[in-house]
Amino acid sequence: MGKALIIGAGGVASVVVHKCCQVPDVFEEICIASRTKSKCDALKEKLDGGKTKIQTAQVDADNVEELIALINDFKPDIVINVALPYQDLTIMDACLATKVDYLDTANYEPLDTAKFEYKWQWAYREKFEEAGITALLGSGFDPGVTGVFSAYALKHHFDQIDSIDIVDANAGDHGYPFATNFNPEINIREVTANGSYYENGKFIETEPMSIKRVYDLPEIGPKDIYLLHHEELESLAINIPGVKRIRFWMTFSENYLTHLKVLENVGMTSIEPINFEGKEIVPLQFLKAVLPDPASLGPRTKGKTNIGCIFQGTKDGKPKTYYVYNVCDHQECYREVGSQAISYTTGVPAMIGAMMILTGKWKKAGVYNIEEFDPDPFMDALNQYGLPWQESFDPKLID
Amino acid sequence: MGKALIIGAGGVASVVVHKCCQVPDVFEEICIASRTKSKCDALKEKLDGGKTKIQTAQVDADNVEELIALINDFKPDIVINVALPYQDLTIMDACLATKVDYLDTANYEPLDTAKFEYKWQWAYREKFEEAGITALLGSGFDPGVTGVFSAYALKHHFDQIDSIDIVDANAGDHGYPFATNFNPEINIREVTANGSYYENGKFIETEPMSIKRVYDLPEIGPKDIYLLHHEELESLAINIPGVKRIRFWMTFSENYLTHLKVLENVGMTSIEPINFEGKEIVPLQFLKAVLPDPASLGPRTKGKTNIGCIFQGTKDGKPKTYYVYNVCDHQECYREVGSQAISYTTGVPAMIGAMMILTGKWKKAGVYNIEEFDPDPFMDALNQYGLPWQESFDPKLID
Repeated sequence: MGKALIIGAGGVASVVVHKCCQVPDVFEEICIASRTKSKCDALKEKLDGGKTKIQTAQVDADNVEELIALINDFKPDIVINVALPYQDLTIMDACLATKVDYLDTANYEPLDTAKFEYKWQWAYREKFEEAGITALLGSGFDPGVTGVFSAYALKHHFDQIDSIDIVDANAGDHGYPFATNFNPEINIREVTANGSYYENGKFIETEPMSIKRVYDLPEIGPKDIYLLHHEELESLAINIPGVKRIRFWMTFSENYLTHLKVLENVGMTSIEPINFEGKEIVPLQFLKAVLPDPASLGPRTKGKTNIGCIFQGTKDGKPKTYYVYNVCDHQECYREVGSQAISYTTGVPAMIGAMMILTGKWKKAGVYNIEEFDPDPFMDALNQYGLPWQESFDPKLID
Repeated sequence: MGKALIIGAGGVASVVVHKCCQVPDVFEEICIASRTKSKCDALKEKLDGGKTKIQTAQVDADNVEELIALINDFKPDIVINVALPYQDLTIMDACLATKVDYLDTANYEPLDTAKFEYKWQWAYREKFEEAGITALLGSGFDPGVTGVFSAYALKHHFDQIDSIDIVDANAGDHGYPFATNFNPEINIREVTANGSYYENGKFIETEPMSIKRVYDLPEIGPKDIYLLHHEELESLAINIPGVKRIRFWMTFSENYLTHLKVLENVGMTSIEPINFEGKEIVPLQFLKAVLPDPASLGPRTKGKTNIGCIFQGTKDGKPKTYYVYNVCDHQECYREVGSQAISYTTGVPAMIGAMMILTGKWKKAGVYNIEEFDPDPFMDALNQYGLPWQESFDPKLID
């Protein structure tokens, strides 16, 4: 049916490639491109021999000209951007120049401000409309599936959604006293940044990690959840008409927070270089070198993730609650695609989003967040491609 | 009256120099010697102008020949060793060669095994006897004053001491979330080493930090105390006849232990070098560079230390308990000598020990632990020179 250019060769890209190869009717040809071509070649080697034709390329995703050249060469029907969020705009520019559809999983943030907002990407709306191409923003799990869940709840279960609580729980245990799944810099930023939630038309900032609840999650059990800012709050506040409150919650264990706090206390998370034996060394970089390699966590992580949305609102004049969630098992993911659930839950929706566009189910010119499309085919695909969802009409609510 | 060669120029040495200069009739001349002569010169500059004549010298305390040359040049009546414990034997060798009395505050430990025991120094007994010179081992606070307290208790309060509990409490607060007073390597070794105590003729090893009590210390209040091995247990078990049990307890706050545990967990306390950007770096060394400089803690540390001994035994056929302790205030120490109580409580007894030898009150040929001498003049000197002791005949006991 089509050709996809996948930019990136990290954990999420690996899942996307694995999943695309499971749907060769849709993904007839893929090209894996990243700065380090050897990583792309390693992926190709693992998956070659199936129906999907795989090629690889070297590309600097910061460089629009290089991207354009690659697109002109490979002639994809869609570009799946699973590179770094800093590179969203250069890749969108290349798609505009070549009139190719675009998809990503995380919104743009400038390298220098570390502040993520949709404004930069939403500014491309008119250009994408004029070019007649689709940009699908945030087709991971959160953002991504959480937006699909919201659109689905609104379509099938509510006349009016009043509140959304997104709960992202990871009960995975890698057996190390402390390690981080991704870049520790990003983990640290998460817990040291102000939180925020949407209420009655505006965003309310909260002190970092100052709002905590305990929530008993299906298949996982009771966990500490903390209110964080998260990017889908910004688009859902606009796309779910009349919603009064949206909050995002993430689990952090006391052990994890203690480790992070201590490392912060002693200065090991600082990004200010210190002079050590004549060499300028950034403590956080040294900490990364001492911590277990995130890539080593995959094979040893046990347990499950549970990510879902709890909705409150009204249907036919009556109050209603609805909870829809996916439970994902780290070890099952690892067995299937060689990555644990953190990468899996992001990579599968990226593949599905691309499938929606390639198959024409989701195709309109412009820049869109995921909840702006019909959720039904995506919800079906989740069940089919490894992220089955479950629902409850009597969930415990978060006060 | 005499001349003292002080080897070392760290925190304890600084206190020794300050205190010697307060007793110029005894310490008519001192020479401060260390590997880094500029540190000695800085000390001299601070204290010059009083009655005690001060000179400085460069010396490598690992090098017996250099030490002998320095002793022959300065012709001291005593060598006060407040250098590193690794250097006890070379300095003792130099004292033997030159027939000069010797004093230290911490017993020898080989650089490679990190195991402290008196056996190496006790092996010098015969040589010191033959040379007609005195070696006074462990004239700090613990070991040191704790031995004097034990000898004093035995001389004045007991016919028989059955048990000794040494309690070393530091309730100082430097205002940092985490910092170490001394070398963090030594702090870390303390809490990761097996504990041990003496009971019924033998030493019983315990898991690191596995025996904990809460003890309510005079002027400090209730603190977590942990059973550790400590060097004076070895000599007291021999020198306090018939003693059945000796234990050493030290305070550690939960916060301190949490920080240490996390740093150990993530590998930052490891002494195995890792390759970081082409350079071999020992994580513990890098941690030291990130932590506050121990030297910076002095001016900011508030609160008190309380170190003492709780004795149980019999007097005139009746059971008796006795607690003798010193309380020391970090800020008062800092005002007096520019060091806080940790260095002060070690440095003052070193000066007093040297005074005991120089004045001839403690003078016998051989190698001795401090409890082998008459405690009375030392106890008087403690009151006079900044470490006054208090006593109680009804202390709470440690179970």
